[in-house]
Amino acid sequence: MYKISTSSSIMHCPALLEARSRLKAQMETSVVSAAPDYFTRTRVSRNVNMEKLQNNYLFPEISSRELEHMKKYPHAKVISLGIGDTTEPLPEIVALSMANYARCLSTPEGYKGYGLEQGNKELRKAIAETLYKDLQIKDTEVFISDGSQSEISRLQLLLGSKVTIAVQDPSFPAYIDSGVIMGQAGEFDHASGRYQKIEYMKCGPENNFFPDLHETPRTDIIFFCSPNNPTGQAASREQLEQLVEFAQENGSIIVYDSAYAAFVSDESPRSIYEIPGARKVAIEVSSFSKIAGFTGVRLGWTVVPDELLYSDGFPVLHDFNRIICTCFNGASNVAQAGGLACLSTEGLAAVHSAVDHYKENARILVDSFTSLGLRVYGGVNAPYVWVHFPGSKSWDVFSEILEKTHVTTVPGSGFGPGGEEFIRVTAFGRRDNILEASRRMKSLLS
Amino acid sequence: MYKISTSSSIMHCPALLEARSRLKAQMETSVVSAAPDYFTRTRVSRNVNMEKLQNNYLFPEISSRELEHMKKYPHAKVISLGIGDTTEPLPEIVALSMANYARCLSTPEGYKGYGLEQGNKELRKAIAETLYKDLQIKDTEVFISDGSQSEISRLQLLLGSKVTIAVQDPSFPAYIDSGVIMGQAGEFDHASGRYQKIEYMKCGPENNFFPDLHETPRTDIIFFCSPNNPTGQAASREQLEQLVEFAQENGSIIVYDSAYAAFVSDESPRSIYEIPGARKVAIEVSSFSKIAGFTGVRLGWTVVPDELLYSDGFPVLHDFNRIICTCFNGASNVAQAGGLACLSTEGLAAVHSAVDHYKENARILVDSFTSLGLRVYGGVNAPYVWVHFPGSKSWDVFSEILEKTHVTTVPGSGFGPGGEEFIRVTAFGRRDNILEASRRMKSLLS
Repeated sequence: MYKISTSSSIMHCPALLEARSRLKAQMETSVVSAAPDYFTRTRVSRNVNMEKLQNNYLFPEISSRELEHMKKYPHAKVISLGIGDTTEPLPEIVALSMANYARCLSTPEGYKGYGLEQGNKELRKAIAETLYKDLQIKDTEVFISDGSQSEISRLQLLLGSKVTIAVQDPSFPAYIDSGVIMGQAGEFDHASGRYQKIEYMKCGPENNFFPDLHETPRTDIIFFCSPNNPTGQAASREQLEQLVEFAQENGSIIVYDSAYAAFVSDESPRSIYEIPGARKVAIEVSSFSKIAGFTGVRLGWTVVPDELLYSDGFPVLHDFNRIICTCFNGASNVAQAGGLACLSTEGLAAVHSAVDHYKENARILVDSFTSLGLRVYGGVNAPYVWVHFPGSKSWDVFSEILEKTHVTTVPGSGFGPGGEEFIRVTAFGRRDNILEASRRMKSLLS
Repeated sequence: MYKISTSSSIMHCPALLEARSRLKAQMETSVVSAAPDYFTRTRVSRNVNMEKLQNNYLFPEISSRELEHMKKYPHAKVISLGIGDTTEPLPEIVALSMANYARCLSTPEGYKGYGLEQGNKELRKAIAETLYKDLQIKDTEVFISDGSQSEISRLQLLLGSKVTIAVQDPSFPAYIDSGVIMGQAGEFDHASGRYQKIEYMKCGPENNFFPDLHETPRTDIIFFCSPNNPTGQAASREQLEQLVEFAQENGSIIVYDSAYAAFVSDESPRSIYEIPGARKVAIEVSSFSKIAGFTGVRLGWTVVPDELLYSDGFPVLHDFNRIICTCFNGASNVAQAGGLACLSTEGLAAVHSAVDHYKENARILVDSFTSLGLRVYGGVNAPYVWVHFPGSKSWDVFSEILEKTHVTTVPGSGFGPGGEEFIRVTAFGRRDNILEASRRMKSLLS
């Protein structure tokens, strides 16, 4: 059985990581480090919320580690199973739709200026009718975004600094980080690795990756991602019914992230709106990124139902619409043309075929880690494999795997203290890379 | 000489406008208005900052008025000189670059996933070298955005709720509205039409559209747009030198919006960085929208110089980079391919030709309004014509012009109290429409 050394490493020490990131910032801004001069400073105070952020944002930090490793081993073939980035080419119908749209922009008939801030009506309608079939989602409740990450920050602008928030622990770091930036988080407690005002809902093997809601205090907002990034677990219908009931009882709003819904292989719901009553308590954020390989094209959507009301009866949709009109100006029209093509019959078939490719990758990875005697979670309803290294620090595991096999993963603790002892391995990748990574793992880590 | 009736109209009454927009929201959310039910509300309080926003965001409101007018006069040919939306087709080289990029996304060699959050390196370099030639802007100081409007909100997230802000009055409404959403604005004072904590720097004919800085209190942030939207005035080099000196003396940060720089016809600076010392006090936001017809494609950029420091010496660039990584995930790669083509020799020539087209439109509009005996500003260094109707309410003028000529404009008061008595007319439009609108104005308003 694979054992990772538990020797201490500077990699996982928040204070040192912070010092390192400041040093890096100083290096980047050479003028500052070369000649610090009091009189060149403005009198504008640094935003206290920005000061509260710990370390760099996770994924650029992983890229930077990968880059350092490549410099150290210039002849190594590094395989990135870190950042969950799509690798399969776009379906031809999707690429050609965008190409055609773009080409027409140079003609008087085909030129388009500003679109509607909320998105192309046809695309909103196609999302409502195709992806929310039989769920009574109206096209006017669907807002087209440039992806979930931007949209989460816009949702935070909507909600403001006074709301209390809960997150799954571990979770996609944008929920917490955007909450910190908005001023919802309070102080960071280094001992626990948590922000004092954020409710961390532990999701691990011990509770079947679903929080014990009887023990969970009420918050205004509950960020909930299923299938989950990073654990790869999809909540069951019964679990989501509990979640909706919990939100109803507490008068909370669920911000449900369904970015990986297309990967669901079993009976788990693909949308929170499959659960009766969810329209009154949930916003759903989603994305074309992982479904259709749009990580670089940038396109997503958000559903805000009519019935979702603030405590004074004011519709959330109305304020969200104002945010979209004021803080956004619509997703790129070329990207929207591509999104529409994804939802055609031919587009959907091609999209599902790419998803199947990544699912097979996930199966290969699950098998490889399992053969090493490790406990492996996820990988069935999601493109992420969540591997347990009991007793180890996840940044140590990350470093050791990278050093021994030249494979990048993501340390679980980057997703919150509940991710400690785990690493996340992405199933997004070319098949040859997945096989080669698996081979290296099996021979070098055993 | 053209005289507008000064009869009162509900159009310009903020309270009624607010009531109207709430009614509209209720109509949009029919379930709410049909069955308001206390028990269906969540217990989440509406964000107090959202409550402070007055009316709808200006431009969707104008679109909605235009739509109402078209319903009232189904056979009228309405010409929109309201929202400043580009109408000239993209240069072929730009459209083909995007088309080619999109098409290649369906091939294994051409497929790209996530790009760098800060943008494509080649595009950052091209912007630094082409648009900031000889101004010592490094590519690492250029961040690619999906347009100025989104970026202004991200800058507000960077700055936080504690900063004090100043805006030109009148100004592009996103500065104030995003400040309100962030909690910088304080209460709205209906009598003055101003938010109590925002400093309004009056810019009108009486001060040559440049604020009297001796009378202007210090704020942390100064939003400054030149060539200005809506007044069409470009600040001179001497004026911008005063502005930079004012920021230096006060330790303020200027957020300089140069979205219309390509329209400068005289010696006025096209970038704040033409002014010595600006690197230590200014961020510059800009956009491909109006330069290259990218209003629907969505692409812009922001410059944050290394030397710009908070009062504690911390580089602003470092926090801005964190915002970009956390609250954004890069502009669409297809749009970025188009932006790069705009900056090629052939692209730049084509782009300038479109700018010249709009400038000629502006000249035609200036002549038309001047022939009516009106005082007209702007239209030389900017695609906006700013027409004075002394003694009239601008919403009345807007309505009367729409009613008599079926031409949409924008009421100046939509840009702040300093815009009262003015309307903004956009020079973005097809030539035949500009000529037809001018003809109607001259015959129907004289």
